Amino acid sequence: MTKAVPDFVQARDHADPLRSFRQRFALPPDVIYLDGNSLGALPAETMPRLEKAVREEWGTGLIRSWNSHDWVGAPRRIGDKIASLIGASKGEVVVADSTSVNIFKLVIAALGARPGRNIILTEAGNFPTDLYVAQGIAGLLSNITVRAVAADEIEAALTDEVAVLLLTHVHYKTGRKYDMAEITRRAHACGALTIWDLSHSAGAVNVDLRAAAADMAVGCGYKYLNGGPGAPAFLYVAERLQAILRSPITGWFGHAAPFDFDDGFCPAGDISRFLSGTPPVLGLMALETGIDLMLEAPRELLFQKSQALCSLFIELIDSMCAGQELELVTTREASGRGSHVSLRHRHGYPIVQALIARGIIGDFRAPDILRFGIAPLYLRFADIWLAADAMREVLQTRAWDQPAFRARAAVT
Amino acid sequence: MTKAVPDFVQARDHADPLRSFRQRFALPPDVIYLDGNSLGALPAETMPRLEKAVREEWGTGLIRSWNSHDWVGAPRRIGDKIASLIGASKGEVVVADSTSVNIFKLVIAALGARPGRNIILTEAGNFPTDLYVAQGIAGLLSNITVRAVAADEIEAALTDEVAVLLLTHVHYKTGRKYDMAEITRRAHACGALTIWDLSHSAGAVNVDLRAAAADMAVGCGYKYLNGGPGAPAFLYVAERLQAILRSPITGWFGHAAPFDFDDGFCPAGDISRFLSGTPPVLGLMALETGIDLMLEAPRELLFQKSQALCSLFIELIDSMCAGQELELVTTREASGRGSHVSLRHRHGYPIVQALIARGIIGDFRAPDILRFGIAPLYLRFADIWLAADAMREVLQTRAWDQPAFRARAAVT
Repeated sequence: MTKAVPDFVQARDHADPLRSFRQRFALPPDVIYLDGNSLGALPAETMPRLEKAVREEWGTGLIRSWNSHDWVGAPRRIGDKIASLIGASKGEVVVADSTSVNIFKLVIAALGARPGRNIILTEAGNFPTDLYVAQGIAGLLSNITVRAVAADEIEAALTDEVAVLLLTHVHYKTGRKYDMAEITRRAHACGALTIWDLSHSAGAVNVDLRAAAADMAVGCGYKYLNGGPGAPAFLYVAERLQAILRSPITGWFGHAAPFDFDDGFCPAGDISRFLSGTPPVLGLMALETGIDLMLEAPRELLFQKSQALCSLFIELIDSMCAGQELELVTTREASGRGSHVSLRHRHGYPIVQALIARGIIGDFRAPDILRFGIAPLYLRFADIWLAADAMREVLQTRAWDQPAFRARAAVT
Repeated sequence: MTKAVPDFVQARDHADPLRSFRQRFALPPDVIYLDGNSLGALPAETMPRLEKAVREEWGTGLIRSWNSHDWVGAPRRIGDKIASLIGASKGEVVVADSTSVNIFKLVIAALGARPGRNIILTEAGNFPTDLYVAQGIAGLLSNITVRAVAADEIEAALTDEVAVLLLTHVHYKTGRKYDMAEITRRAHACGALTIWDLSHSAGAVNVDLRAAAADMAVGCGYKYLNGGPGAPAFLYVAERLQAILRSPITGWFGHAAPFDFDDGFCPAGDISRFLSGTPPVLGLMALETGIDLMLEAPRELLFQKSQALCSLFIELIDSMCAGQELELVTTREASGRGSHVSLRHRHGYPIVQALIARGIIGDFRAPDILRFGIAPLYLRFADIWLAADAMREVLQTRAWDQPAFRARAAVT
């Protein structure tokens, strides 16, 4: 990465009010990491925080730390912090389980609140786990059907048979962002509840659940929130709905008084009713560290930088890779996209591998999508230029055209 | 703890073939930890292993570590290790979610495999989350009923309406251990499937799922397996049943080819079909460290020592605390109990607090149970004597009779 970055790009880094955040991450020196939408980078504070959690809280405090270090309050405490990132209020978000399990809980809760309606409406090509979980629910509950339609057919599909609309706010593949407020309004007009999957939104783009009158949401801790591999996920239920909605997975941590050890389940009166089993303490502490770091950055600056980096990447790809059969999938309209840029190329897979071999880590999504995640806390404008320049070189020299770059691995 | 431990107790430590394992744990010096059945102690290797997972695998490897460090294979790899502790075969155990979520998945899978039968049979006073999850399922699925009966009524309750028998192998409160093979035989004779909750068994007592012809099981990673607070749980499905049983939570990690990103769910052909969301990597690495340590100890010696420590504790309480209204709840018959000893006293709560103030950490379960977990890897016979002696002192001097010891905390 000794390549000379043009002055106009360096000037943007110089003027970036968030530039000091980069040194708060433990990034490898030889890498430009454009996959923070798949697994966020490691905050420098995470290891010391985990060391404290392990040695002092677990090792020395042992069972006493459930109280003395408030492990028991961690799912709500961290939920409140996430709430401030996504326009929710305290007590509306809790950290629990995985995104898949949270989708399962909330879709079934929504179906229970809309008796007589039997359709789960979603988008064809939605993130697989959203589709799979909905399909599993339809297989479990009699009369429930999943209807998956193209994005532009959702409005027409919102009939009075729809119990719940399950959409991903920012599409994992294309980066397209829905107008959450407008679609929620339409869903409500037909009497349906909404569940927004914020996996590619939280910490990356401005989300305002309150302004959108959103009902429910789920999201992922290991992407832009930098919570670590397989970090616990979160879920949001608007306060006005908490008393009505019931989680189907009635584990002891969702009980009104878990430590009374009663034989009969009585759901907590608040967001805690959507907890199920014992909270994953080590994962929670790592996640909290990532979120604490993000909360130090003013939200508007974060999302502005994310848009600016994405726009620069698109402009540079346009100019530096013209005539190379690289097609922009993500919209040029900043307000209509999330914080990753997707390109299409029929040799997408080996191109991504050739970039990775050069230290530019993006990822590939079948059949032909090259995906580049733009995490505003740790990326520089210079990184964007270097990535675009590497793309130019890989395409111009056909560096991707090697057997080693065509071999598929299990996860990309 | 400077008290003189009698020679006959010290001699037993000297003769203990597992005595060197104690130094493999980071135990605080001023504590005798008799709550490993609630949260296991910290293995010395866990912090270095987590540091590698965080700094090298996550920080430097980033997204590449799903392949290069085989994060993707961790749930099955660690499942295979647990299998060897509980008499299961490779490919029959997977690490996933929490115990509560795993119970939910397996009970529904069992109901699906026994159409026409509508009873979930369990024990009244079973661990709350087992009862709660079953109750939630009965609320979710029409016609399904939970029947909870006393332990000695289970045989009579096994009718041809019972789809699944959900029992905890070692009772969390009393320490009573079921005859797994015999009860499984009776359940099978009536056509029911069985789910054994091994939370208080795995790593503490001899479990032989194969010999018992067990169908399904779940268990906890943070008790005797020393996986850390809120460690991921495990589940077992006998190989012969894997093709028949379907998890209701059809997340992407349960798909036959998760990284093909297909729109339609197709369950994995093996135990992986019981996975749901993205595996919790940091929690998995901590859990694996605890299990690796346990696997170094010969299984028979481990379970023999557990029984010997429990027997000694019971004998010492008998002799040292006679006439103090302390009632033994756990059976004296080693083959009929797990690896914790429960006592009953009407002042149980403040007595446990007074012991904790002296560094003897056990726990209390309402209304009047004092519970002492005996983890064979890190406890000495001397610890057992010191604990019994502290109990003697607390009772004889009524040291528990103070307001500070009566005040209740959220978790005990």
